[in-house]
Formats: sequence, structure tokens, C-alpha cells
Amino acid sequence: MRRELFTADHEAFRELVRTFVGKEIEPNYRAWEERGAVPRDVWRKAGGIGLLGMDVPAEYGGGGDPDYLHHVIVSEELGRAGVHAPALSLHNEIAGLYLRTLTTPEQRSRWLPGFCTGELVTAVAITEPDAGSDVARLRCGAVRRGDGYVINGQKTFVTNGAVADLLLVAVRTGGGGGNGGGGGGLSVIAVESDRPGLARGRTLDKIGMRAMDTVELFFDEVEVPAENLLGREGRGVAYLMRTLRRERMMIAVSALATAERVLEYTIEHCRTRRVFGSPVGAHQHNRFVLAELATAVAVARSFTDRCVAEEAAGRLEAEEAAMAKWWNTELCQKVVDRCLQLHGGYGVVRDFPVARAFVDTRAQTIYGGTTEIMKELIGHALI
Amino acid sequence: MRRELFTADHEAFRELVRTFVGKEIEPNYRAWEERGAVPRDVWRKAGGIGLLGMDVPAEYGGGGDPDYLHHVIVSEELGRAGVHAPALSLHNEIAGLYLRTLTTPEQRSRWLPGFCTGELVTAVAITEPDAGSDVARLRCGAVRRGDGYVINGQKTFVTNGAVADLLLVAVRTGGGGGNGGGGGGLSVIAVESDRPGLARGRTLDKIGMRAMDTVELFFDEVEVPAENLLGREGRGVAYLMRTLRRERMMIAVSALATAERVLEYTIEHCRTRRVFGSPVGAHQHNRFVLAELATAVAVARSFTDRCVAEEAAGRLEAEEAAMAKWWNTELCQKVVDRCLQLHGGYGVVRDFPVARAFVDTRAQTIYGGTTEIMKELIGHALI
Amino acid sequence: MRRELFTADHEAFRELVRTFVGKEIEPNYRAWEERGAVPRDVWRKAGGIGLLGMDVPAEYGGGGDPDYLHHVIVSEELGRAGVHAPALSLHNEIAGLYLRTLTTPEQRSRWLPGFCTGELVTAVAITEPDAGSDVARLRCGAVRRGDGYVINGQKTFVTNGAVADLLLVAVRTGGGGGNGGGGGGLSVIAVESDRPGLARGRTLDKIGMRAMDTVELFFDEVEVPAENLLGREGRGVAYLMRTLRRERMMIAVSALATAERVLEYTIEHCRTRRVFGSPVGAHQHNRFVLAELATAVAVARSFTDRCVAEEAAGRLEAEEAAMAKWWNTELCQKVVDRCLQLHGGYGVVRDFPVARAFVDTRAQTIYGGTTEIMKELIGHALI
Amino acid sequence: MRRELFTADHEAFRELVRTFVGKEIEPNYRAWEERGAVPRDVWRKAGGIGLLGMDVPAEYGGGGDPDYLHHVIVSEELGRAGVHAPALSLHNEIAGLYLRTLTTPEQRSRWLPGFCTGELVTAVAITEPDAGSDVARLRCGAVRRGDGYVINGQKTFVTNGAVADLLLVAVRTGGGGGNGGGGGGLSVIAVESDRPGLARGRTLDKIGMRAMDTVELFFDEVEVPAENLLGREGRGVAYLMRTLRRERMMIAVSALATAERVLEYTIEHCRTRRVFGSPVGAHQHNRFVLAELATAVAVARSFTDRCVAEEAAGRLEAEEAAMAKWWNTELCQKVVDRCLQLHGGYGVVRDFPVARAFVDTRAQTIYGGTTEIMKELIGHALI
Repeated sequence: MRRELFTADHEAFRELVRTFVGKEIEPNYRAWEERGAVPRDVWRKAGGIGLLGMDVPAEYGGGGDPDYLHHVIVSEELGRAGVHAPALSLHNEIAGLYLRTLTTPEQRSRWLPGFCTGELVTAVAITEPDAGSDVARLRCGAVRRGDGYVINGQKTFVTNGAVADLLLVAVRTGGGGGNGGGGGGLSVIAVESDRPGLARGRTLDKIGMRAMDTVELFFDEVEVPAENLLGREGRGVAYLMRTLRRERMMIAVSALATAERVLEYTIEHCRTRRVFGSPVGAHQHNRFVLAELATAVAVARSFTDRCVAEEAAGRLEAEEAAMAKWWNTELCQKVVDRCLQLHGGYGVVRDFPVARAFVDTRAQTIYGGTTEIMKELIGHALI
Repeated sequence: MRRELFTADHEAFRELVRTFVGKEIEPNYRAWEERGAVPRDVWRKAGGIGLLGMDVPAEYGGGGDPDYLHHVIVSEELGRAGVHAPALSLHNEIAGLYLRTLTTPEQRSRWLPGFCTGELVTAVAITEPDAGSDVARLRCGAVRRGDGYVINGQKTFVTNGAVADLLLVAVRTGGGGGNGGGGGGLSVIAVESDRPGLARGRTLDKIGMRAMDTVELFFDEVEVPAENLLGREGRGVAYLMRTLRRERMMIAVSALATAERVLEYTIEHCRTRRVFGSPVGAHQHNRFVLAELATAVAVARSFTDRCVAEEAAGRLEAEEAAMAKWWNTELCQKVVDRCLQLHGGYGVVRDFPVARAFVDTRAQTIYGGTTEIMKELIGHALI
Repeated sequence: MRRELFTADHEAFRELVRTFVGKEIEPNYRAWEERGAVPRDVWRKAGGIGLLGMDVPAEYGGGGDPDYLHHVIVSEELGRAGVHAPALSLHNEIAGLYLRTLTTPEQRSRWLPGFCTGELVTAVAITEPDAGSDVARLRCGAVRRGDGYVINGQKTFVTNGAVADLLLVAVRTGGGGGNGGGGGGLSVIAVESDRPGLARGRTLDKIGMRAMDTVELFFDEVEVPAENLLGREGRGVAYLMRTLRRERMMIAVSALATAERVLEYTIEHCRTRRVFGSPVGAHQHNRFVLAELATAVAVARSFTDRCVAEEAAGRLEAEEAAMAKWWNTELCQKVVDRCLQLHGGYGVVRDFPVARAFVDTRAQTIYGGTTEIMKELIGHALI
Repeated sequence: MRRELFTADHEAFRELVRTFVGKEIEPNYRAWEERGAVPRDVWRKAGGIGLLGMDVPAEYGGGGDPDYLHHVIVSEELGRAGVHAPALSLHNEIAGLYLRTLTTPEQRSRWLPGFCTGELVTAVAITEPDAGSDVARLRCGAVRRGDGYVINGQKTFVTNGAVADLLLVAVRTGGGGGNGGGGGGLSVIAVESDRPGLARGRTLDKIGMRAMDTVELFFDEVEVPAENLLGREGRGVAYLMRTLRRERMMIAVSALATAERVLEYTIEHCRTRRVFGSPVGAHQHNRFVLAELATAVAVARSFTDRCVAEEAAGRLEAEEAAMAKWWNTELCQKVVDRCLQLHGGYGVVRDFPVARAFVDTRAQTIYGGTTEIMKELIGHALI
């Protein structure tokens, strides 16, 4: 079934992204996995051809086109290739949303040009060791001192944290908040990564997504000027919530693209590889598995494209994004798992993309809000 | 998420159907279940307000509007109400497709006026005891004799078979066919139900859908004139295949409407009924079940509406209809089963619609092509 | 794999039960389903050959053998035959447990002889319309007046309620209890069914188990003598809890026997019925389904027999009985559903046992404590 | 529920194994994973305390006790610790079965002493690139030349292949066989790993089990003396089949031990780690997940112990071992996956055993015969 979202211009942009992924990312990806990070260079190359800040106003060096579908295309092409670094979508969609919409003209001038060229890589630091997804329990604190803030505390699971130049950090600035009072008194402050007192912990030793660094951050009397506050003090919870719908769609979009691609080459494998004298796919059980996965992917595709259209039109509800998020990520894991099984022994050998997808996609049902949190959110809206 | 298929005119038609269902069908339905059939009267009432032959040309008394969405609306409203008789969709969509497109002007004049008023109720007789869904194994035969055909054989699982006036029967007329030769030599002949030699067997004692009669038919030297042949002799397999895509969409549309409705009132039940001191839906497990079902239904809705739009545009592929068919019917059974469980003991008491839906929907994954046959069809298209 | 529980004496008893089921129950069962109840006569026949009160002391007319396995054999044979009435196991195991262990010698002399001959059929009345499985919310009350009690209130889902002569009723007798205070003040009182003021409501119109009557009971100033109190006043919750472990094993045992039998004849069906030119079971998908179900049933059989052995030895934990209950009943429903699908259209026709099993077994995951309550119980024991 | 298989002597042996695992394996395991192999030393240590060749006759340096339960205990303790190397069970149970039962006294004297001390590590080489589990398609050939054989061909997925001193290789020696004729003409020949012409390919880059080397082997005119033939020429298929039942039980036993252990510490995690203000396990959904997994594990435990007892008694059927194999390995993967999810973000960090179990256990449903092959085997026995 033909997708209905994209124009010829979109397809040209997709071609640009796909070429970039094929030329600049894929050939180097296994080396980056070994290193546990991507080089700065690739960020600048992405910026150079317009893959950073597509929706940042042209005056700051961005693409100047607010069209949401460019973000969708980037997520799809990375997801399709099964590469999780550089984390372009996180930079463009999530950090970008903060920096475009919560900033003063001065801040925009300070940060957005580098954001678009790839000189200023961003990360978002929210999670803490004792407060997984529970914003009300965040404790990392910023107190006013003189002209600025002093930050103390710890963050973890910070994607891009090792390479980022600018960290957008959720901090408790006091006010109504306290230790769990619904998240009152939370603010978002931008912290340059070379500030004294800011230390990066080790890169977490994850089972997958190993080219994308995930680190702990330690703040010990880190001073930042007041001009680094994003938006208004104490409004952090509202700001965080605003980005979540978009982040969940980003993950949903990526997960489905991965599932589609893994299924595509598994179908090819089932056509050509022979077992017990026939192609893998000639055995009825395997054919049924492929039929089931193809159906599930087609069904999810319709829903996802519909959600994308609604998001583009500014109408998508938080619950709908939550539905897309858990459905697609659970589906992606199921598709990958079943496709791995269809590969037999080769399925666990890392030369085969399905083996790498198996370890790389497992965290999808956890980050950006677990499947369980999505169901809470949807369930509460129903009852 | 708003559905995008329907205009204000469609909604007016839906209102007409819903009123008919609420006034003429629902109040009588349990009595019809006891009887095992619906009275003729309700067919004439349906015809009287334009619910038969919406797409039959006006010159034959039909609605004269080829719009597929009227059929969709009828299927949805019957499915939503959980009523399976009178089998309007089968008459309108399946028998109607044969009678509108395979007929001579003389045949249309003979049959379509009654088809539209409800005087001439139709049924389609294909399945035989020894040939479930396997057209190549049909044996009921028609041989030329004099000016017509003489039919001998047996049919089973004939929906509407006890009340129908005109039976559209798949018969083997010889030619390339033989006993299994890919279905060669199959034809479709219309047989008036009062022909000598035609006997109706008992109504099958089904676990559900009990207002909709399903019977066996026995043909013993039944003579029909040559003018009762539909289309061309020996082309029956092609004719059968043509209706299958449409029939599968009809079932998919109905199944999803049922699932949506059952979920709606189960959510209401979970809001109001209390267990262990709280509403049923306040318990996390139940809330998660509702969230899962609501997501699954929303996802299926997008895909189904997309398939409907493609069918309306004449672009739907057989595999896509097969996907919608198995996905929605399996989903419907799952939704009903989980919703029944959420009702506790009341879930098996027939005063509650969910209990009746449980027995009424079980055959959906079987008729119109089993889930397994759908997967074969999809799988073969993939490999 | 050979079962290890039974001796030759047990097998002889099984033969007795199986013969009784085949001769006295099965030939009449569909008629009883129409009537919605079994005749008194069959109870007396069961009593006549020793199928009532196997563990009641011989002095009261019972079998005098405390061996738990006789109960297991009766449950298995009824479950295997797919018959749910007469409710011998409920009478023998649950009512019997109350009457054997909570009674005075006078009470035993009064009730047990009839209990064993089938003259005194029993039922247990606990559930109320506003208190499903939540004992703390039972409200049906008994107040002391003169030499006895006066009962007011309502019960529902009373199995055997229409035919029973003696009802064991959970009533609130005051004391610590109140409206939900953990069930304090609950007692069990035996009420003869012909007491003035006791009215039976309609038989619930269930989707299955239709030969086994399930009724509502209304108590309007029903007077019973103090000698009808079972055990001690206010100890009802403890008494109820004691029977639950046994009741859950009874259901688990029955469910697995049903699953095994349905699978057996479905395998036979898959060997002999041909579709698309081969036996149903020759198609790989179907063969895999059978392999999956056969494995699941074999695995459950080991666990169940182990639980039975532990129960016989007095060592079975409440959580273990809960495990067996939810696992086997969910499995039974899955086996029946998959076996129905393997029957194609015949699967929903009531001539086939699988169709009847589909409607008859659906309540198993609800009565005796829902699957959800079982998981609560197990989960709390883990955490 | 107490397990019934083991005596006090068994428990003492288990203690010995557990101590060895805790002292010699676990502290070094991550280093071995980096290296992709275990040092020879650990094999000698295992031999030194009697963990190699427990059932080899004492005259050859073995334990001299044919008791199957010692093997079960070793598999359980390795599985429980989640360590896959050194591959003691493969050496003891599979290679050992060949070397104990198919050998001449001369061969036993030649190989078994080293087998028991750990000087002679074994591997079994059957699979070939173009013949996954299909013995009939093996092509690696041995032709008689002079006093011995000359072997040409390729093997893959050879566990232990990089460290093994003696490879037991399935080769086609001609005779009835040919290229697919049911496996006729297959033989098993022992090949010392330092034979000229034998080359080890790269170690396969697997997603898990990385301390256990899995390699490709290339045979280019490798000469071996006739005395290296195991058993009789041309009987290889029968020999292979004999070991499969045992190998499948070995995998089933290990998988269940892993599942039990992962569930144990996940329960502990759910007791202590807090989210949204309560322990993870206090949230109903999580509690239900734990209850489901605990039930599934308890049920599988009963079946597995029953299978072990039957195997010890020489009565286990091939289909029963197949049931245990697919059921336990699928269960293990499900348990690990659900437990990972209960860990949230930590679940994918390799510091947590569940993350490592996720990647280490994925191949279980593939090696030793895939789940699909198990279902074929069981299904064919049913139909």
C-alpha cells in the first residue's frame, strides 16, 4: 500500500539522508561500536549537508522549514539502517525543540548556529539513579548564587553525554517542589560541557547501541550564568512533558522503520537460503511467520503514518503518541526476534544485521518511557 | 482520532441504519435466536427504507449509488450492534455482486427488483461437506439436459439457506475440471428455492449466530433452465475469487466494529462496577488490559479505514484484504475474550452483550476463509 | 509418560466412574442442558454406587476412605467427558469438607446419610451481587433471634442452587466485621431449601454449563435453628479459606482432564479429516499447533500430578494450588480454542464436543477465584 | 515444592560444582569473554576435582559412576551461574557418550585418561554451512587411502572448536548415502586438532556466549589413521541420533536453571528497587508478571524433573526430550526478557546479570535442534 505522506521534495530529502547514511555512517559503524562513540567529524558532515536543524530559522543557519516530515525521514533512514549514532534525531528533535522554543534571541544566536553546523552537539540530561522515569523524584539541584546558578547532583543514562558540548539539564531550583511534590520547582538549564566541576562518569556498558555513548554525569558545584536558564524558572515539568509526545513519536517512527527493514531482508533470506531441501520460506510454518509479521508491520504502518499526519497538523494527543510508542517498539522486538529465529544459527552471528538488531533494539521499550508507563498513560485516559 | 472516510451524507445514512437496527432488529433479536431465523417481514422493512441494493441501478429499484461506503456502514452498524441476522451484507455485497455484474438485462429484470424490495432473499451455496474452502474439490454437479441443467449433489454451511428464495450455487459443469483439476469446469447457477428435488437439511446447531440460519442443501435431480446460468459456463472459479476480496473486507469491517463496541461498554463497566473497594478499571492490571485493547483497536482502525479507502478506489490487493480479515477477526476474538474476563462472573451470563459476543464471534476466524488460509495467501505473495 | 499416582484399586474406581458417566450422564446430557438442570434421580444413582461421600465415615453411610485420589478421579472423569452436572465434585469435595469437619456428631447424623445416598443434595452460597470474590464485602446477614438465626439478604452464582436440599450459606453474624472490616463476623449456616422466606431467583442464562443450574437466592426473614450453625460463630472467613485450596485443585484437575480429552479427539480428527488433499494434521502449521498443545498438556500434567501428590500428603501450599488453578484453566481454554480452529466450520457446530467445550469451559478462569486473583495471591507470596 | 531427585551425595557434589563455578569461573568470566575463549588451565582444574568424566570407568581415570544426575547437576550449576564456558557438559555428556560407548579398548586407553584430566579437550563437529540441522545434506567427506582416511570439507558452528584437542567429526564415507540419500554412508571419525591440513577459521562473532568459542573448520586433505574411526563405518546417523536425546535434555536442564536464577534475583530486585515511590514489585502489573513467571517456572520444573527421572531410568522418549528442549528454552528466553524489562534501563547494562543472560541465552532455541525441528518431531509422533 502506497504511503500518502510524502511529496517529491520529501523523497529527494530522503535520498540525501540515505546517501549520507550509506556513505558516512554504515562503513564506519562497526569501528564506532568498538570505540563506543562517533567522531566529531561526522556531526560536522551532517551539518554540512543540511541534516542538522532543518527547522531552525535560516537566520541562525538552519533549514528554515518547520515541516515535521523532515524529522520523520531522518528517523526512518537511521532506523532502517539500524544505526543509532550519531544521534541526529535526539539533537534535532528533542534538544532542538528546547533550543528553538524556550530561548531568548540572545540564546538562539549563541547556540543555534553551532547546533546547525555540528560544532555544538547537544544532549539532554534528565534521568537520575534514584528516579527512573519519575520526574517528581529528581533531586539534582541548582541554587541561585550571585549572577547565576550552582548545580550539584548526578544524572545517568545521558545519551550523547560523552560527546555533547551543551547539556540541557533538568534541575530542581526550589519553589513548590520539595522531595517529590509533583515536580514543582523544576527548571531546565543549559550547561556547557567544559564547566569546572562537571565530570563524566564511565560510558555505560550496554548490550547494544554501542556506538551511541550513554554516560553518567556528576555535578559538583558547577557554576552557570543565569543566561543559561531555558524558559522560566520552575516551569521545567511543563517543558519536559511537551517534548515527550514528540520523543515518543520519534522512537515509534524509528522502531517501525527498523522492523520493516529487518523483515525485508529476512524475506529475502527465506527466499534464497535452503533448509531440508527447500527455501526456508517454502516451509509452511516459516511462511506463516512471515505472513504474520508482514501483516503486523502493514497494520502498524497505517497507524503510524496517521499519527505522523496528526502530529504534523498539531492534533496528535499524548495518548496516541504513547500508543504508537509502545506498539511499534514491542512490534519491532517481536519482528526482530522472529526474524532471528528464521536465520537459524546465523541469527546470532553479528555479521547478520538481524543479530545486531536483536541487541540494539532491546532498550526501545524502555527509553522514552517504558511500555508500562505508556499503558498507564493510556489507561488513565480511558477510565 | 477522527475517521476520515465519511461525509455528512454518509453519516445520515449511518443514522438511518442505526435507527433501523435499534427499532426493528435489536428488540426482536433474542426471539429470533430462539426461532433460529428471522421473519421475512424484516427483509421487506429493510428494503422499504433503502437498505437493500444501495448500489443496484435505480431502474431496477435500487439506490443507484455505486459508493462502496454504504456497504461499509451497514456492516459496521450490524457488527456494532452484535446482530448477525438478517444477513443484509451477505445479500447486498456478495449475492449482489453476482447479480449486478454477471447477469443479462433479462436476469437483472427478473431478480433485482425483488432483491431490492426484500421479496427475493438470496443465499450463496459453495461449501460442501468434503471440500471446506478447497474449490478444486467441489463435486456438486450440473449436467446439460434439454434446455437447462440438472443438478445433483450437496452443499453445507449455507448462510440464509433456510429463508432464501434464490440460491446462487457453485456447480461443476464439466469441461477442463474433473475431480480436483484446479477447479476447471465450475459454474454459478441461480436456483429458486422451490424447485422440485431441492431439500433443505436441518439448521446447523451452532454455538452462536443463532438467529442467522445455516443449513445443508440437498440437490436431487433439480432442473433449472439455462437462463439461470450466471455469466459464462466454466468460469465459476474466477467469479468466486472476485467476490472473496470483498467478502473478506466485509467480515473485517464487521469484526472491528464489534470489537470497538464491546470495548466501549467494557470501559464503561470498568468505570462503574466496583471490586475490592475500587472500580474495576482502577486496578492496574485491568487498566493495562484496557490500554492494550484500546491501542490494538486504534491501530486496526487506521489500517482498516485505509483498506476501505483503497477498496473504494479499486486498488485493494487480495493480500491486503486477507490481512485485514485475519487481523481484525483474531483481534475481535481477543478483545471479546479479555472484556469477558473483565466482567467476572457476569461475563458468561447472556444478559451481558459480551457473553453473547463471545459465542457469536467465534466463527469469524473460520468463515470467509480461515486465518490459516489468509496466511497462506499472504505468505505466498511474499515468497 | 506414565502417571505415577494411581494404584490398581484407583483404576478400578476410575472404571466405575467412567461407566457411570457413560451410561447415566452422557446419554441424557443434552436433554438436561435443555431443561437447565439434572433430575434428582441421577444423584441417587450416583449415591447408590458409592460416588457420593467416598471419604465420609462408614457409620454415616460413606465410603470411609479418606484417600484424596478418589475425588481427583471423579473430577477427572467428569472433566474428561465434558459434563458439568451433576456437580458431584462440588458436593463431595467442597460441601463435604464443611459437613465432615465443621460439624457436631448430631449434625453429621442429621445430614451425612442423605449426603451419601443422594437424598440430600448440597450447595454452597457465598457470592453476592456486590461482592464478587471479596469476602470482606459480603452483607447477607444473620441475627440471633430466640433459639436461632434470622437471615436476610441475597446470594448469586449459586451452583446447584435450584436442586439443592441443603444450602451452606456464608452470613454476616456481626462481631468485629461491619461493612468490609476484613470479614470479621462471618459465619457459615446450613439452610434447608424449604425454609419459609427463602426464594430462588431465576436460573442464570449462562453461555455454557447449562445442565448445571446457577441461581440467585433471596433470604427474607428466613428462620433457622441455632443447631444449623457450622463450626463456631464468626469463624467463617477461616472456614472459607480452608476450602479454597481444595476447590482450586478440583478445578485445576478437571480443566486439565478436559484439555487432554479435547486434544485427543482433535488429534484423531486431524488424522482422518482431509483438507486440500491431505489430512488436516499433515499440514505443517496444524502439526505444529498439535505439537505445541501436546507439549503444554504434558508439562501441565507433571505439575498437576505433583500438586495432587502434595495435596494428598497435606503439604500443598495455597500459592501452589493457585498456580495449578490459573495455569490449567487458561491452558484448557487455549487448547479448546485452538482445537476448535483445527475443526474449521464444524468447530462451532454443537454436534462436535469441541464446540460445546468452547462454551462450557469459558467460566473456569473466573469461578473459584479468577486468574487475576490467583496472580495476586502468588505475587504477594513472592514479594 | 521440594525437588525429589537428589540424595545427600548429590547435594555434596552440587556444592563441589557450585564452589568451582564461584571460585574458578565467575571471577574470570568477563576476561574470558573479552578473549573469546577460556584458558586450558581451567579444564585441568575441573579435571582435577572430578568434574570431567564422572561416568568414565575408574580404570581410565574417570569417576566410575554411571549416575546421570551428576551431569544434570553440572548443567544446572553452569546454567544457574549463566556461564557457558568451559563447555563441561558438552565434553562430558556428548563427546563423552561417543568416547565411552563407540570405542575400542585401545581407543579408550588412548583418549579417556586425558579426557578426564582435562588434557584432552573435545569438540563435536557436525554442522556444515549448507546443511544446518539436515544430516542428509552433510558433504564433508572421508575417503579410504592406505591405512586411513583422507578428509576434505568444511564444518561450522563448532563449539569448543578453537581449544579442542580432539574433534569428533561427522564425515561422509560413502556407501548407501550419496548427496542426500537419507544420510547413508555417514561415519564419525576422531581427528586430532594438530593434523596437517586442518585449519580453524575465525571464531564466529556471536552476540552472546562469547567466552565459548564457536569456529569454522576447514579440512584440506587431512589424513587420519583408520584407528580413529568411532564405531562402525556408515553408522554415523544412528550414532548422531543417539546423542540428540541426551543433548536436548542437557540444554533443557541448563535453560531452566538459568530461568530460575534470573527470576530469583529479579524478585529480589523488585523487592528492593523503588519506582514511583514503591518497590517495583508493589505495582500490580509487575507483581502479576512475577506471578506468571514463577508459575511457568514451577510448572516447567515438575516436567523437567520428571523427564530427568525417566532419562535416568532409560525410559525417556525422543519426543519427550524434544518437548523439554523447546519448552524450557522458549520459557528461559521469555523469563529473561520479562525480567530485563522489570529492571528498566539497568536491564540493558551489562553489569546486571539479566542483560548478559539476554544475549547469552538467545541461541538456545536454535542449537541442539531448533524449536521448529522439535515441533516437527513431536508433531510427527502424534499424527
